[in-house]
Amino acid sequence: MIRVGMIGYGYWGPNLARNFLQVPGLHLQRVADLNESRRDAAQLACFGAEVTADATSVTHAPDIDAVAIATPAASHFELALAALQNGKHVLVEKPLAHSVRQCERLIEEAAKRNLVLMVDHTFVYTDAVRWIRDFVAAGRLGQTYYFDSIRSNLGLFQRDVSVLWDLAPHDLSILTSVLGREPRSVTAVGACHAGSRVPNIAHMTLDLENDCLAHFHVNWLSPVKVRRIMIAGSERMVVFDDLDSSEKVKVYDSGVSIQHEDISGQHRMLVQYRTGDMTSPALGNREALRTELEHFRDCVSGNLKPMTDGESGLAVVRILEAAEQSLERDGARVYL
Amino acid sequence: MIRVGMIGYGYWGPNLARNFLQVPGLHLQRVADLNESRRDAAQLACFGAEVTADATSVTHAPDIDAVAIATPAASHFELALAALQNGKHVLVEKPLAHSVRQCERLIEEAAKRNLVLMVDHTFVYTDAVRWIRDFVAAGRLGQTYYFDSIRSNLGLFQRDVSVLWDLAPHDLSILTSVLGREPRSVTAVGACHAGSRVPNIAHMTLDLENDCLAHFHVNWLSPVKVRRIMIAGSERMVVFDDLDSSEKVKVYDSGVSIQHEDISGQHRMLVQYRTGDMTSPALGNREALRTELEHFRDCVSGNLKPMTDGESGLAVVRILEAAEQSLERDGARVYL
Amino acid sequence: MIRVGMIGYGYWGPNLARNFLQVPGLHLQRVADLNESRRDAAQLACFGAEVTADATSVTHAPDIDAVAIATPAASHFELALAALQNGKHVLVEKPLAHSVRQCERLIEEAAKRNLVLMVDHTFVYTDAVRWIRDFVAAGRLGQTYYFDSIRSNLGLFQRDVSVLWDLAPHDLSILTSVLGREPRSVTAVGACHAGSRVPNIAHMTLDLENDCLAHFHVNWLSPVKVRRIMIAGSERMVVFDDLDSSEKVKVYDSGVSIQHEDISGQHRMLVQYRTGDMTSPALGNREALRTELEHFRDCVSGNLKPMTDGESGLAVVRILEAAEQSLERDGARVYL
Amino acid sequence: MIRVGMIGYGYWGPNLARNFLQVPGLHLQRVADLNESRRDAAQLACFGAEVTADATSVTHAPDIDAVAIATPAASHFELALAALQNGKHVLVEKPLAHSVRQCERLIEEAAKRNLVLMVDHTFVYTDAVRWIRDFVAAGRLGQTYYFDSIRSNLGLFQRDVSVLWDLAPHDLSILTSVLGREPRSVTAVGACHAGSRVPNIAHMTLDLENDCLAHFHVNWLSPVKVRRIMIAGSERMVVFDDLDSSEKVKVYDSGVSIQHEDISGQHRMLVQYRTGDMTSPALGNREALRTELEHFRDCVSGNLKPMTDGESGLAVVRILEAAEQSLERDGARVYL
Repeated sequence: MIRVGMIGYGYWGPNLARNFLQVPGLHLQRVADLNESRRDAAQLACFGAEVTADATSVTHAPDIDAVAIATPAASHFELALAALQNGKHVLVEKPLAHSVRQCERLIEEAAKRNLVLMVDHTFVYTDAVRWIRDFVAAGRLGQTYYFDSIRSNLGLFQRDVSVLWDLAPHDLSILTSVLGREPRSVTAVGACHAGSRVPNIAHMTLDLENDCLAHFHVNWLSPVKVRRIMIAGSERMVVFDDLDSSEKVKVYDSGVSIQHEDISGQHRMLVQYRTGDMTSPALGNREALRTELEHFRDCVSGNLKPMTDGESGLAVVRILEAAEQSLERDGARVYL
Repeated sequence: MIRVGMIGYGYWGPNLARNFLQVPGLHLQRVADLNESRRDAAQLACFGAEVTADATSVTHAPDIDAVAIATPAASHFELALAALQNGKHVLVEKPLAHSVRQCERLIEEAAKRNLVLMVDHTFVYTDAVRWIRDFVAAGRLGQTYYFDSIRSNLGLFQRDVSVLWDLAPHDLSILTSVLGREPRSVTAVGACHAGSRVPNIAHMTLDLENDCLAHFHVNWLSPVKVRRIMIAGSERMVVFDDLDSSEKVKVYDSGVSIQHEDISGQHRMLVQYRTGDMTSPALGNREALRTELEHFRDCVSGNLKPMTDGESGLAVVRILEAAEQSLERDGARVYL
Repeated sequence: MIRVGMIGYGYWGPNLARNFLQVPGLHLQRVADLNESRRDAAQLACFGAEVTADATSVTHAPDIDAVAIATPAASHFELALAALQNGKHVLVEKPLAHSVRQCERLIEEAAKRNLVLMVDHTFVYTDAVRWIRDFVAAGRLGQTYYFDSIRSNLGLFQRDVSVLWDLAPHDLSILTSVLGREPRSVTAVGACHAGSRVPNIAHMTLDLENDCLAHFHVNWLSPVKVRRIMIAGSERMVVFDDLDSSEKVKVYDSGVSIQHEDISGQHRMLVQYRTGDMTSPALGNREALRTELEHFRDCVSGNLKPMTDGESGLAVVRILEAAEQSLERDGARVYL
Repeated sequence: MIRVGMIGYGYWGPNLARNFLQVPGLHLQRVADLNESRRDAAQLACFGAEVTADATSVTHAPDIDAVAIATPAASHFELALAALQNGKHVLVEKPLAHSVRQCERLIEEAAKRNLVLMVDHTFVYTDAVRWIRDFVAAGRLGQTYYFDSIRSNLGLFQRDVSVLWDLAPHDLSILTSVLGREPRSVTAVGACHAGSRVPNIAHMTLDLENDCLAHFHVNWLSPVKVRRIMIAGSERMVVFDDLDSSEKVKVYDSGVSIQHEDISGQHRMLVQYRTGDMTSPALGNREALRTELEHFRDCVSGNLKPMTDGESGLAVVRILEAAEQSLERDGARVYL
């Protein structure tokens, strides 16, 4: 039985806790949060767990084997490092940390102590993304042309967190998981509205080499909720619409043919993109977090490398860091 | 009665011709096309018009008052200039010409001779865009936050025409018409696939000052057809979905409020974007081209300045020229 | 503090329990279920409640003030009657009972003892249905023309429960709540598939007088999930699409005008139905069950008549009973 | 070359004429309409055809081989009969005639004279319906469970034509073409609004034997335009949404399995309907009317039986006649 301690019981914490309580082999031992009303909520919901205001009673406690960190991003690094230094396996909410350097430090610490360091890129564990990853890995897409992502809607957000750091990690973790490659360079533009000091809308592009372009539109100020990713290849195209409850993934047969046209002796070549049948695979509807926590358990007990390990977290943060530099330099291209 | 001559009876020409035949006060006198089978088609459809292979019998003929040019973009400048120099009013398919310089030359020629020079930015004459323009002009949007446009689907295209020059003029003409301001700078990135030498997918951003950001995604290689524009303001947001036959325009009440949260004495400010009611106005379903040609007739007979005059055409070409430079310079920002 | 006992912890019970635990003024004292694994689940989730296999320890216990019954429909009558006879207020899952007679018996018993008898017509408490009811009550619809409901999708169901008894109560309770009138007659046709002895698809029509027709399509065997109600009036039409997360309710301005046409002296009158603007009101997103249980609490403590009282439950069952007779008589009209 | 005469140039006539002009082997010789402005329109559009007010100059003329009738339904019988009696092949707009008896008379006349009698059930010639018919004919559906059709929206209509006779022929012709069987009995209910003397909304059910139920909802008074047909079988289900421009036909793998549940020794059988993958086939986008007129030409020249022959027209009228009787008898079942 792996004894788990959680730090942070805000927006995402209750979901983590609920799943910790349900996965066999994990025991939720302790939950820490600075906020009293959140502690009260944890007390009611986390049957059998101690609730405390003191994070060190999680990171430093001898009766804890693994620590899950679901606090605001600013504290991820410090808490994760403390937990690792005290010999705990660690699961961190995305983003793994605030800088490439912090991520590298955590990876190094975990490696040195032979501990599991996993980042909570939840989307990677959804049935939809797993299906798409297998599909792409099987070469069904042909040559990859582009990756296009939109994630937008109105909502509540902190004034000093950029929409890029808040929303883009989801899509970047999907990109990394599905295409398995890192960009050569990054550009980003954004805008700040309603008194915000950081962008609440941003467009980021990645150059993935071989004419493969990735684009991310993240937006906190959209009347329409959109969560859609398109991945186009020379032979097939995949659309992942997370808001379509019945047909989340659609695969389009497609291809290119050249047509010729003669006008008064002048020859013109036309490119014809076409689509054939579309198929939408039946997917399971497992809660991704459940799948993820079972994977965390297996990694901890079997000493395995997680699918979303420190390196995955680092890859995402490296792109975000570059995007931030591009934003500051007015959209100039930043090479990695 | 204004005697009209048309040059080009390819993709768009038949639509123009059909409307020329229907608008009172206009008489379709002559149609020129280099291609024989197209001339046969024109012969059948254009009751009462002469059909010819010779463009000069349109641009130079004494029995023609106004010339409509619907040829490939490469020949717009030369044909329009010839028509103006022969004292004809001119209507040109978008884009007006291939460069800022060419556009300026046409504007100058038309001004000198006191002729109407109009560019066929058809979308500007749709009931939807006219409604949105009036709505924005009435100040209903509040402060403008962003303009976001997606135009994509699979199709047939020429190998040497960029998707930007082909599709973006539609959206840029809408931007210009609705917001009435020109950008300070432009960035663009794109990618070429399937042996194309020019981008078949591109992302362009415009800095419209005062934190107003415009973004355009044009794509010839998408399995999903999308034609959607969002315009967000501090008080309302407008979504224009050209593929939604029943609810093309939706207006969302929206706004921003600040919320406060206290965690263990730490104070945090949260921004809450919210939406209220949504309204979709009843729009007419007039054919835009009909409205446009009636406007052309009125401008010619009343010697009026068209809504989409040479300056509108120039504004669009200026942005496209800058975007092309940005593409060539790997996405670097280009100032206008 | 009202002490609540629950019977049945299957499909719907956990939702009830979760809300009982959250509504101030209600205390979940005891939960009964025959099934052991369900009792285990209740034990984990219902902090502070006793869990038992014995329903009489709920219906007959002196430390229980109100009983909620969420068992299969077959046992509703017996359990509800026992609870009432022991002086408990009662909340029963829909349908209230299996026959008009049973409903009348429960209403009589509750009246005699001055107890609250409420039926769990959850949809009536949604923000959407409440909005529509107020809208119709304000006379905004004009004269009511029809009510049309579709509720369908694939799923799991018991072999001996008809789709009419299972799904139609939702829509009938909405009809009753919104239009507030009872039908004069009923017709129903259905079909049994895949070895089922009772219909798994059915169409029911109600004659609501004054040319107002209601139609219900309930279907367990549809690949497409649909939950849509249209209510048409002479001045406006309302569409309630429960699966549309952002625009659940849409109101269309509409109306009728007469047009005249003359063909060679023959005069023809044409009817023109038209729509004007569409509006989708902003709705809250309160959980309906929470609203409902607060109402139950207020009825119990204030001795008020519930919005979905025994009479509402009876109205629904009366229609279902007639529909069943029509089904048995091959679709013949049954008068109420 | 088959010389065609047309009678009626109102709503549908121009579409017929345009296609007659394009199909090789057909020559549009003459067009008759009582209305002067319609004759003017025909004159402009029907290059090479004579235009007249006199229908007998079509039905009785020696220079006409085939007659197309696109007049209001009331005159179909008389005009078609006259044409047949004068030795012309005949194509009639739906419905073929106003009664079973009239249809039989036309079939008899055509048979006696060995002439082609074809009814313009256009939908049968769409790529979508042809695909579905082949799919069903190949046995891919399994046992047919039901056919469900909705056709609705606001519009313009004549005061004395029932929505059943106007809209239902489309769906009945699809039913007949795809399933190839005739119903045993019919029920129909409807309602009249806004001063109409005939129903402007109706529900019709057909008993197709073997537990196969067909339902048709036709509605002239709906704010939402719907044109959707579902055909469910034991192995697959097909949804045909005519308003979905990109995915008109969707096929769902589906099936039934039995699950068992034990509650305290009581055994319960549950039916589980499930869906697997969904596929949407790529369809051509040929104009159905073009396909139909080529078929008409081939039938006339090759003396073949049309896919939508007099018997098809009769099958549809027989159902409509029964539905009308059911409407008059308050929804009572009418046997065929």
